[in-house]
Amino acid sequence: MTTPTEPMPAGSDGPGILVVIGGSEEKEHHPDILQHVADRVGDGPLVVMTCATEDPKDAWKRYRRIFEELGVRTVLHLDVRDRRQALDEEASRCLEDARGVFFTGGDQLRITAHLGDTPVYTRLVALIGRGGLVAGTSAGAAVMSEMMVVDGEGDATPAVDEIVRMAPGLGLLQGVVVDMHFSERGRIGRLLGAIAQNPRNVGIGIDEDTAVVVERECLEVIGSGAVYIADASRATHSNVAEGAGGEALTIDDVTLHVLNAGRRFDLGHRRPH
Amino acid sequence: MTTPTEPMPAGSDGPGILVVIGGSEEKEHHPDILQHVADRVGDGPLVVMTCATEDPKDAWKRYRRIFEELGVRTVLHLDVRDRRQALDEEASRCLEDARGVFFTGGDQLRITAHLGDTPVYTRLVALIGRGGLVAGTSAGAAVMSEMMVVDGEGDATPAVDEIVRMAPGLGLLQGVVVDMHFSERGRIGRLLGAIAQNPRNVGIGIDEDTAVVVERECLEVIGSGAVYIADASRATHSNVAEGAGGEALTIDDVTLHVLNAGRRFDLGHRRPH
Repeated sequence: MTTPTEPMPAGSDGPGILVVIGGSEEKEHHPDILQHVADRVGDGPLVVMTCATEDPKDAWKRYRRIFEELGVRTVLHLDVRDRRQALDEEASRCLEDARGVFFTGGDQLRITAHLGDTPVYTRLVALIGRGGLVAGTSAGAAVMSEMMVVDGEGDATPAVDEIVRMAPGLGLLQGVVVDMHFSERGRIGRLLGAIAQNPRNVGIGIDEDTAVVVERECLEVIGSGAVYIADASRATHSNVAEGAGGEALTIDDVTLHVLNAGRRFDLGHRRPH
Repeated sequence: MTTPTEPMPAGSDGPGILVVIGGSEEKEHHPDILQHVADRVGDGPLVVMTCATEDPKDAWKRYRRIFEELGVRTVLHLDVRDRRQALDEEASRCLEDARGVFFTGGDQLRITAHLGDTPVYTRLVALIGRGGLVAGTSAGAAVMSEMMVVDGEGDATPAVDEIVRMAPGLGLLQGVVVDMHFSERGRIGRLLGAIAQNPRNVGIGIDEDTAVVVERECLEVIGSGAVYIADASRATHSNVAEGAGGEALTIDDVTLHVLNAGRRFDLGHRRPH
């Protein structure tokens, strides 16, 4: 397989757009986030990728109806169940003309384990390179970062020897760690544990029915909840490296921003505006 | 009633000790927090105050056994069901010789509404003034601050017109807002909402089986979890005053510290050490 050389790092000049959704986005009454995706892709084609879910038919049926109602003329379905399908050059040909891709929720490891370094992935990177849009919700959002959180149910401060397990994501968005269902599932401890491991990553915790739209270096919040941005670059102390087993996480001087709809954050300078 | 003039502000020279417990403290295998309380009060008397709970007999029975097992020779019970009892000078006479008081959990408004500005309160303040200890868990901990959080189940970023309801606490610990069961119930949004209303208060979120021991200006963490300290004194923007109804909270540049057992925080200078 070719090695993609142009993922879209936050802070690059990549012209594509990422829409990273915290899960449980409103689908009926005020589907603002999905409307945003629909408006951005225009007539399409928009490819709904149901790789993460165990029930791809149901997910496809639901999102097809919604995106068509929201005005996307051409909505296509791409489901990949295993690497054999992902490696088939023909199976993902539809991505070559796509203006956007939408990843449904499910299990993020299904996405990365099946699509990593395959023609599907190469075509996603190419889509972004030509100004396309990649959106994803819940697991479909978690995969966008370089490293993704794969376990820990949140809701308790992690012990230093049980800091969240992480796995390599698709790497479409670099320099960040993204967590979903954020305030709803009490994930501040787990996000801080993730960024304490290496403060070069900014932690981005996205509430349900809330998303960040990332273009070049800039992130903008849409939806009804909030986005928590945790920046440990000026942290003066943590026990992630030295702490004894079972000891709770400690970290000093994290800068925390809570951003609601319309607020923006400059990933390059790490400043809200 | 006399107006107590010597509550113990964080940052004062008050010689007393507060032990503020985030709820669900370990009671059987490694009751480190309750052992700390027991060690501090020595032979006692330690007065268990069950005012907050609907089942005072059960709470008294449990804590009496524990504190006796942990070495406190004299453990007494003070239950106040209403203001009439609280206003009875004789009913709380036992507090005059007490070395410590322990407030059980329950509903914090039962404590403040029944004890506020009564001889019970005056005697609590006097106890602290002579170097005594006041401990409390869950609701019994929430009441210690000047303002206390009384509703909101956490687990979602609050809308700006639904920021947590607060009520006046006992005011034994000033300049802070305390929240309990912190990471377990996902309360970061609600704590930030509380401090955004007036950043003169430092937000202190205490995990279960975790406590802060406050002496003079210094707070020290004990127990198995972590304490989250949110300081909005350098916050550059929030929408608490101007935000439209239904809009999610936004606030920039909160400084967040996560402290585990043994870590300390200087409330006067707002620095961990």
